[in-house]
Amino acid sequence: MMQEDSERTELENLGEFGLIDHLTKDLENKQPTTKIGVGDDAAVIDIGDKYLLVSTDMLMEGVHFDLSYAPLKHLGYKSVIVNLSDIYAMNGTATQITISIAVSNRFSLEAIDAFYEGAKLAAEIYGVDIIGGDTTSSLAGFGISITAIGEVEKDQLATRSGAQENDLICVTGDLGGAYVGLQLLEREKSIFKDDDKIQPDFSGKDYLLERQLKPEAKKGLKKMLKNAGIVPTSMIDVSDGLASELMHLGKNSDKGMTIYENKLPIDPLTVSTSEELGIDPTISALNGGEDYELLFTVKQADFENIKSLDGVSIIGHVTDINTGFNMIGKGDNVIKLSAQGWNAFSK
Amino acid sequence: MMQEDSERTELENLGEFGLIDHLTKDLENKQPTTKIGVGDDAAVIDIGDKYLLVSTDMLMEGVHFDLSYAPLKHLGYKSVIVNLSDIYAMNGTATQITISIAVSNRFSLEAIDAFYEGAKLAAEIYGVDIIGGDTTSSLAGFGISITAIGEVEKDQLATRSGAQENDLICVTGDLGGAYVGLQLLEREKSIFKDDDKIQPDFSGKDYLLERQLKPEAKKGLKKMLKNAGIVPTSMIDVSDGLASELMHLGKNSDKGMTIYENKLPIDPLTVSTSEELGIDPTISALNGGEDYELLFTVKQADFENIKSLDGVSIIGHVTDINTGFNMIGKGDNVIKLSAQGWNAFSK
Repeated sequence: MMQEDSERTELENLGEFGLIDHLTKDLENKQPTTKIGVGDDAAVIDIGDKYLLVSTDMLMEGVHFDLSYAPLKHLGYKSVIVNLSDIYAMNGTATQITISIAVSNRFSLEAIDAFYEGAKLAAEIYGVDIIGGDTTSSLAGFGISITAIGEVEKDQLATRSGAQENDLICVTGDLGGAYVGLQLLEREKSIFKDDDKIQPDFSGKDYLLERQLKPEAKKGLKKMLKNAGIVPTSMIDVSDGLASELMHLGKNSDKGMTIYENKLPIDPLTVSTSEELGIDPTISALNGGEDYELLFTVKQADFENIKSLDGVSIIGHVTDINTGFNMIGKGDNVIKLSAQGWNAFSK
Repeated sequence: MMQEDSERTELENLGEFGLIDHLTKDLENKQPTTKIGVGDDAAVIDIGDKYLLVSTDMLMEGVHFDLSYAPLKHLGYKSVIVNLSDIYAMNGTATQITISIAVSNRFSLEAIDAFYEGAKLAAEIYGVDIIGGDTTSSLAGFGISITAIGEVEKDQLATRSGAQENDLICVTGDLGGAYVGLQLLEREKSIFKDDDKIQPDFSGKDYLLERQLKPEAKKGLKKMLKNAGIVPTSMIDVSDGLASELMHLGKNSDKGMTIYENKLPIDPLTVSTSEELGIDPTISALNGGEDYELLFTVKQADFENIKSLDGVSIIGHVTDINTGFNMIGKGDNVIKLSAQGWNAFSK
């Protein structure tokens, strides 16, 4: 009665994006209301006057989070943020979410309450209703699945595929902090493992820990852009690292991307802590991930408008596809970018 | 750094519905488009001309399914069906789904392909687009989260809360088969464990195995009802057993429910196999679950229309709340119903 594999291909050989491509390559949309299916930050459904946006994420204990340093309340908050970020990445407004959790009997009601407290707090702050979900048990560990719903005016939609040559590449906030925060937590965890009398020393690192454990999503960008009369030509959220996201925008838009190392917004604390940990801060920004900033492109003509926006950096420009993905280094050297984005299936 | 519980309440003490009630009791909907949040088969969002329906389910290996007898292709099919059934239970049309899975390295690409093959087949047969999802790894086991999206004309919406006194209680198809099918599979699994040379003997039981392993959802009811000019006053799908679903309708509508044992639609094979296994067939129908039939109420005035509908049984009527939940037995005895619905948190 057991299942047998006549052939066996290991998932780690494909990686997360390879697997998604494989599974979704022959999907066809037949519903007249499906405008965009798999392949963007959120699916887009035509509901008449507007587009409805739908995005979903699954987060598993031991893969996406480590409860030995992620407090459950923060985990609840972050789980919601991660999903809202995908709606904002379509230049949309998030309106509702569903929250499903699977928990083993290791978890008490008080633990679940802490998780929900964080999730509800995020929902309240970001103005979304929790309209459904599921709660069930699991044989092992904590699993979370959240679906976010949003809407966008049809003429404001930003997808991954609209970047045009010479468009400006912009990003909100600063990059690499969440990754450096994670490295700090991992370092203290291993020290703690060796000697449990040592207390973690995070003094002065609050910003980095917060970037990792309790990130925020860029709800405000949509309004700022609208007020400035700008519709991004393409947009994506920075969940897997800047390099990986640039390549998503480029590949979906059939364009190349060139960025400038000295334009990358990296917080001074990220720089100093990254160096302390022996990691080039630029690598933290390019490959780190989990920043939940928004990466987008705008027309050259919007230059004057965009450069005055608070918290937005212009980091490069869109090129033809043959130029590929490049970073102009601090010494004007040209560095080929590769996607070191996070792979959930690597060992 | 580890989390500590000062107090610890075990989840099994609340049960699945108790936990959901606890977590959602203070939720407030603030978005003007949220018409119904938590508490029905699907959430209802006002999108102008119509209502949008959203439902989500999480299925975990070892809790909701056992891969030693559920083939992955069937599991993919069933996972989609379970979610579409929630949309049909609002008298809606299912239009799109997202599919997220978390898998340990025990699973090969071929195994995931088999799951998706089943899921895609269900999507094709039921005419829904797969518009998104997530694929990730898990430390142990197979986890599935599906969100179904649908729509319904505003005057056709059926919720759990509209049943009125003297309405007729109706149900599609037949009940108890999926439960008896599960008992057969469990029996053969334990025989197989004791002596692995014995091959499972399921001859003549195909219908029951199919009810358990590859159920169908009642997509067709909506059209049948519409053609007959009937809008159900309330509706729910039979996922946890008839008794549990009757109590959901009753409690949400603030009404009692009386059904008649001799009106319960039970397939002859369900009856004979249930008896063979030493289970009262009525118990299989009342408490078994996973039938994915639709239970609904209609006005007395619709009696002539409803009784001519193919595959629909009238099994009782709605009473005032004080009468409670009762079944009139075959000997005209009155039996109080209790919800023995499936509890994901019981040991």
